[in-house]
Amino acid sequence: MRLDTSRDEPLHHQVYADIRDAILAGRIAARSQLPSTRLLAKELEISRTTVALAFDQLRAEGFLETRERGGTYVAATIPDRALSVAPHPLRRAAAHSRPTTRATSPAIVSTPSRRGAALAALATPSIALSRLQPRAFRTGVPSLDAFPYRVWGQISARLWRRAPRALLAYGVPNGYEPLRKAIAHYLAVSRGACCSSEQVIVVGGSQEALYLAAHVLIEPGERAWIENPGYPGARNALSAAGARLVGVPLDAEGLDISSGRTLAPDARIAYITPSHQYPLGVTMTIGRRLAMLEWARESGAWILEDDYDSEFRYTSRPLPSLQGLDAAGGDQPARVIYIGSFSKTLFPALRIGFLVVPPMLVDAFSAARSVIDRQSPTFEQAVLAEFIAEGHFVRHVRRMRALYAERQYALLRGIENGPLMNHIEASRSDAGMHLVGWLRHVADDRRASSLALEDGIEAQPLSAMSLGDSPRAALLLGYAAFTPATLLRSSERLASVLDGLRKQSPAAGHNPNVARRIHHT
Amino acid sequence: MRLDTSRDEPLHHQVYADIRDAILAGRIAARSQLPSTRLLAKELEISRTTVALAFDQLRAEGFLETRERGGTYVAATIPDRALSVAPHPLRRAAAHSRPTTRATSPAIVSTPSRRGAALAALATPSIALSRLQPRAFRTGVPSLDAFPYRVWGQISARLWRRAPRALLAYGVPNGYEPLRKAIAHYLAVSRGACCSSEQVIVVGGSQEALYLAAHVLIEPGERAWIENPGYPGARNALSAAGARLVGVPLDAEGLDISSGRTLAPDARIAYITPSHQYPLGVTMTIGRRLAMLEWARESGAWILEDDYDSEFRYTSRPLPSLQGLDAAGGDQPARVIYIGSFSKTLFPALRIGFLVVPPMLVDAFSAARSVIDRQSPTFEQAVLAEFIAEGHFVRHVRRMRALYAERQYALLRGIENGPLMNHIEASRSDAGMHLVGWLRHVADDRRASSLALEDGIEAQPLSAMSLGDSPRAALLLGYAAFTPATLLRSSERLASVLDGLRKQSPAAGHNPNVARRIHHT
Repeated sequence: MRLDTSRDEPLHHQVYADIRDAILAGRIAARSQLPSTRLLAKELEISRTTVALAFDQLRAEGFLETRERGGTYVAATIPDRALSVAPHPLRRAAAHSRPTTRATSPAIVSTPSRRGAALAALATPSIALSRLQPRAFRTGVPSLDAFPYRVWGQISARLWRRAPRALLAYGVPNGYEPLRKAIAHYLAVSRGACCSSEQVIVVGGSQEALYLAAHVLIEPGERAWIENPGYPGARNALSAAGARLVGVPLDAEGLDISSGRTLAPDARIAYITPSHQYPLGVTMTIGRRLAMLEWARESGAWILEDDYDSEFRYTSRPLPSLQGLDAAGGDQPARVIYIGSFSKTLFPALRIGFLVVPPMLVDAFSAARSVIDRQSPTFEQAVLAEFIAEGHFVRHVRRMRALYAERQYALLRGIENGPLMNHIEASRSDAGMHLVGWLRHVADDRRASSLALEDGIEAQPLSAMSLGDSPRAALLLGYAAFTPATLLRSSERLASVLDGLRKQSPAAGHNPNVARRIHHT
Repeated sequence: MRLDTSRDEPLHHQVYADIRDAILAGRIAARSQLPSTRLLAKELEISRTTVALAFDQLRAEGFLETRERGGTYVAATIPDRALSVAPHPLRRAAAHSRPTTRATSPAIVSTPSRRGAALAALATPSIALSRLQPRAFRTGVPSLDAFPYRVWGQISARLWRRAPRALLAYGVPNGYEPLRKAIAHYLAVSRGACCSSEQVIVVGGSQEALYLAAHVLIEPGERAWIENPGYPGARNALSAAGARLVGVPLDAEGLDISSGRTLAPDARIAYITPSHQYPLGVTMTIGRRLAMLEWARESGAWILEDDYDSEFRYTSRPLPSLQGLDAAGGDQPARVIYIGSFSKTLFPALRIGFLVVPPMLVDAFSAARSVIDRQSPTFEQAVLAEFIAEGHFVRHVRRMRALYAERQYALLRGIENGPLMNHIEASRSDAGMHLVGWLRHVADDRRASSLALEDGIEAQPLSAMSLGDSPRAALLLGYAAFTPATLLRSSERLASVLDGLRKQSPAAGHNPNVARRIHHT
């Protein structure tokens, strides 16, 4: 490791960059154990805190993992991907020798740049999953059996018959106006949001919304609060923008804002899912919402409010969005960027999501979006605008709400009185498309998840959503896309996987954690 | 200006960043003149070369402009945009005082980050244009009157009737497989490209292709060759990725590679339009193509080959793509990334474009794409795949080729023997959707363009496509989307605008430039 105290770059960042590069280049193998922070600090003759900071950042970016019994390991997935793009030995050799600063005699580089490799490494897990048709218990996928194909197809056919030239020409980067109006109206009625259609920016789903917001609002190196555990897609978008991630814990009221203030009072941005926290399902209380806004106003930070499945609320009326609270602040400068998507309410491959941004940011978001990919396709925006305007959207959401409530109940029966009763505890959630299944006897949820996958069961481990120490072991159990019969059959198979695991390590205990305190909200 | 010789950051970059920030913050007003490089160098006690480097970069990024009669000015449009996002005086004050490094007492920032503002500033011109329905002589828009709405609508309706669940679920980030196969087949037959469908990455148009390639392949600060004059969208995508742009001149054979080797032998990437250079229309000779590949192989640089309107070639068979030449190189490591789009051949709002990347980069591009916006919408990809497979695509392109050849001829008549004959010279081009109209008596093409716009005529100035010194004054005259009658009427109006300008400044001379040498290719 080459540390240079004369350089401007902080030492911990030098340690971080060297380890990261070594992992990307394959010089440190996947799954191999790293020396302890104490040992490494001694060897490098630097402080242990410096090493710990570097490890934290590497962990946040998914390069390192901390195992249950202690010890820090190179993650299993990241370096495989980085290597897989350079299978040819000659090319790989060239990549390894790629100089950090360009030398006068250049090496032939056939791999992505370091930025490219880091960007690519962020994406690994979701890609692996997306290659398969969804199987129980995949999360985040709606029921496509129940989609109103006929209605959507009819609207589409009607529009094509009009030979709609205006829908084929270049449009504005912020989106098709009738759709922006329909979204603004819907948000006002259903989500307590307060915005004009000018503030709505249509993008290609919530991933692009997050990517765009992170790039427009923060500088590389600025700190970002993220929920811990939290949504990996948001983590990726913020990391891609160069944010330094700070995992903020949750309790029964939602994000623990006082922890956030202690950990990173100067964060420039905070990503939250207040309606229904992903993945734990907590709804942020009104007190916390106000405290969140207060912090943002005091510190000048931005809040990214991802309202990702707020439509599927089964028992009570949803709380108004933070965006609405923020907009009610009168003279206070606006702090909230609201993010919504039709991937869950309609279908994922539609690729229509949106942001609601404060009026003064509209031009910057539109312009930046046009540099990334210009605009969203117009025709499907027009179909969606009609679909909403004619009342089909609200009707479909209402039908899905009933269907998903039923499916959640079917899954819960399997957990409380069925095949999973000895293995998992979970409680009814009043919203969403998945439950958190806390493992009673298994401590390693990643192992449980990968064994289940071998058996054709998809159940993501909670620890994959966590930064740093793993919370209590749990699997995320999505139910929205699966019939009660499928849920029962899959519960039986998952139970037998967990049974096998329990027999292998009967003494495995729980990992006590804050997550435990809140799983009965 | 705060220059710090002890910092790692090169002095010219410090000068550049300070001026850029001052412009973005409004401390230097739009259109104001800057001191000469000599004066500023003296004042800062640094070398004149250092200041010149900073000015070059600012000019490349559109912050500064050089006027005909000498002198460097702040661009008219950039700072307006940066300011327009902060209209509220209180918020604007906060933005101005935003500290470069975060202070302990934070200011409430209600503007984008510096990166966000810079990103947004890149987009200004195209946004202004896209708000209008296209009028003669807008470039880059196909004829939407001639689009086969009925056929496309029928394929779409047929697919919807099948209730296609698989088209609604999350797909892979690199694109719908049948479409990738159709594209690979089409490229092999029509463009002499050589690729498997695995190498095709479907994206949301050529802008996203450029943005993605720049982010995956280069590090911030690396140099990029761009054609000068050249396509602003590519400039923007490369700038957004932090590339330092190096304008390489053109001659009658295409890009002047020996100039490029002199100006920036160490460039990491080169953006070229070899089939039909944008905007000048030169076709790169086979000798230059081989020289281009040779340079890339020697230096380890990447070539972005944008084949943006190669389909519309009227007289001769197109030359095979550089991608095909590169792939024929056997053991040589691949250097070419091919970019194509359906915006010109079908319609812009379809938002389907694609890259062909070397096999070893496929995973990195797919993964990086999934972090930006996950994937393209699937349904329209499926319609397009059928449209191509059933032969409609080739048929439509053939029909448009005949139509556009006719329209080019109509425009040329107006230039050679019609209303524009005293104002413009142009020569038939054997490809494309626009002509370069060299102004006979007017030296300021930006002024001509903006006066024409006031009269309802869209004709982009050539100098808007140029880095540094303006080439000989010219207007780009698009003809593809307009009937012969419209082209004639608009030519008459443009002639009267140019007539008025000529009377104002009868002595205006030509600005001799390399562009002059090649306008009769």
